[in-house]
Amino acid sequence: MQILCEGLDLADAVLKVSKAIAAKTTNPVLEGIKLVAEDDTLTLFATDLELSIEKKIRAQVKEEGSCVVPGKFFSEYVKKLTNDKIELTLEQNNGLKIKYLDSEGYIQCFAENEYPDINLTEFKDYFGISKNNLRELINKVIFSVAIDDSRPILRGCLIEVTKDVVKAVTSDGYRLSLTRKALTYSNMETSFIVPDKSLREISKLLDDSDEQVNVYVSSNFLMVDQGDIKIFTRLLEGEFLNYKQIIMASNKDTVITVNKAQLVDSLERASLLSKIGQNNLVKFDIKEDTMLLTSNSEIGNIREKINIVLEGKDLLIAFNARYFLEAFRVIDDEFVKINFQGPTNPCTITPVDGEKEEYLYLILPVRMIN
Amino acid sequence: MQILCEGLDLADAVLKVSKAIAAKTTNPVLEGIKLVAEDDTLTLFATDLELSIEKKIRAQVKEEGSCVVPGKFFSEYVKKLTNDKIELTLEQNNGLKIKYLDSEGYIQCFAENEYPDINLTEFKDYFGISKNNLRELINKVIFSVAIDDSRPILRGCLIEVTKDVVKAVTSDGYRLSLTRKALTYSNMETSFIVPDKSLREISKLLDDSDEQVNVYVSSNFLMVDQGDIKIFTRLLEGEFLNYKQIIMASNKDTVITVNKAQLVDSLERASLLSKIGQNNLVKFDIKEDTMLLTSNSEIGNIREKINIVLEGKDLLIAFNARYFLEAFRVIDDEFVKINFQGPTNPCTITPVDGEKEEYLYLILPVRMIN
Repeated sequence: MQILCEGLDLADAVLKVSKAIAAKTTNPVLEGIKLVAEDDTLTLFATDLELSIEKKIRAQVKEEGSCVVPGKFFSEYVKKLTNDKIELTLEQNNGLKIKYLDSEGYIQCFAENEYPDINLTEFKDYFGISKNNLRELINKVIFSVAIDDSRPILRGCLIEVTKDVVKAVTSDGYRLSLTRKALTYSNMETSFIVPDKSLREISKLLDDSDEQVNVYVSSNFLMVDQGDIKIFTRLLEGEFLNYKQIIMASNKDTVITVNKAQLVDSLERASLLSKIGQNNLVKFDIKEDTMLLTSNSEIGNIREKINIVLEGKDLLIAFNARYFLEAFRVIDDEFVKINFQGPTNPCTITPVDGEKEEYLYLILPVRMIN
Repeated sequence: MQILCEGLDLADAVLKVSKAIAAKTTNPVLEGIKLVAEDDTLTLFATDLELSIEKKIRAQVKEEGSCVVPGKFFSEYVKKLTNDKIELTLEQNNGLKIKYLDSEGYIQCFAENEYPDINLTEFKDYFGISKNNLRELINKVIFSVAIDDSRPILRGCLIEVTKDVVKAVTSDGYRLSLTRKALTYSNMETSFIVPDKSLREISKLLDDSDEQVNVYVSSNFLMVDQGDIKIFTRLLEGEFLNYKQIIMASNKDTVITVNKAQLVDSLERASLLSKIGQNNLVKFDIKEDTMLLTSNSEIGNIREKINIVLEGKDLLIAFNARYFLEAFRVIDDEFVKINFQGPTNPCTITPVDGEKEEYLYLILPVRMIN
């Protein structure tokens, strides 16, 4: 193998595929990046067996061939070689020579026959969505994925695809996040569960644009195809929560409309004190046209008064303030509705314009001893 | 005590003095910030017994008085109260009420009689220097202060003041950094040693300006007076290295002139490999008009060729690349001179224009087995 390419192209490609390099692995070859030179293209590929990323760049191929380079070192090295043309030559003892200007490096490669052959099955079904919508779909729910392994299926995000719409749902058992986005095309109605790490990387690799991207789905795999970069991920097997049943329960006894920014400021201040007590607990006292947020700890207390519009009954209820703050961070609206059903049932945060059904964040309260 | 002040002023003042709050202390009151309301001023003060910071802001004092508030919580709280007027009221049970808009907090204060009375002695001697020059004086040497306590005096920075010039010197035993700056005024010729933590905070609190700042020195203390903010620090006791003797030794056998940016790029690449070997060792092979930098590890090797102008003998010598990179980070010149005296003596980095004597960085080589 011998090729000539632009340093900037190579650095960009290596940066992107290196997100799929296995961080902790008992199989060192998975720390590698596979390079394949063919026609006028250099293809870079990395996988941790769950997430795989493939990126193609233009190259002048003097001799076709392939090798597997140590990923972390190669990525740091080419990051510092962005100004020049780079020549890569595979030498006889499986060492890769990297030449630029008057200087050069030499890296020992992994044995290529040890590199796994990921069986990326044929994809038939796909849907089309704008890059911005796909990124938002992910970012608006990914924060509430479970962080422990007690229910492994909750480490994933449920994606439901219909003809026009895609929904994403996550839950860590204490709260549930749901958002929906329009599709530009779909030839299927299905649902599947994507591991959170894969979704985070997919979101980062989508540039800020309204261009369409195609998402292919098979029984075990999902592939996001952006042309010169393809991202593959295994899907999780199992049953997700029956989220429809959870959110179907009506909660209309107490409905408030509130300015989001104001509530965020007050919650942030109130939770400073509750962080000291390490419970993050903030009480909501809803009465007529005001909501009083209070928090306590041994060093003091904070009382924040907020104007609201109330429909329904007064209510005293307590929450982990962090759950509200994390949901509000991904809500763009100026005003939101919060819907309660007594002090022991979950509340939901929804758009003021209920017709939109654009998002729903459900949060369990903390029980109080009265 | 009862006062009314601007949230923004209070947040800024608390942020500044909180740099002197003790991080790890067996005396909890040192985690406090002392507030004193008098005339039309609120004075904030914090100390860890080594570094002390005092900042004054304008306030409408309704009732004079003082208290010591928990520093970390108070600082996080007022950081989130920058839009409004704030009223602080000390209540009978030594609790401070913080009122803003319709909301309020209440914090339990420390017993004021437990707060230390720092004896800030009278200062006679001082020198004047522009804020930019003082900040640069610190930043250009602080990185090579010793990080372990084997020789406690090397945890400080030697400052030498004459009529027109101030010099700063640091050394961790493997390298030595020296820089000099012009003074605008001085009524003394003296030298003293300032703890590195204090210097770092002094540097951060100096705004980017050519305004003069006065630095007062007594036998045990130094005080940087910026008008509304005063920073006090204890001085270290003991003898610093005899740095003049160390840098007097001539090193002229091999003198090279080199483009700094080019050398930095090459050193960064070469040190990627030496980092894997964990020695950070890079060999310099100086011959005629080129310098070849090489590094090795089990996974490969890198050879970087750089054009130089050489006066004197060829030389093969090895260094910890990090020491060069850290010195170059604070050198603004496009070209520098590096002066060697054989493979076992220290080298020095100096300006190309030797008359300037603006800086000198001395670095010990790593011995090689030949």
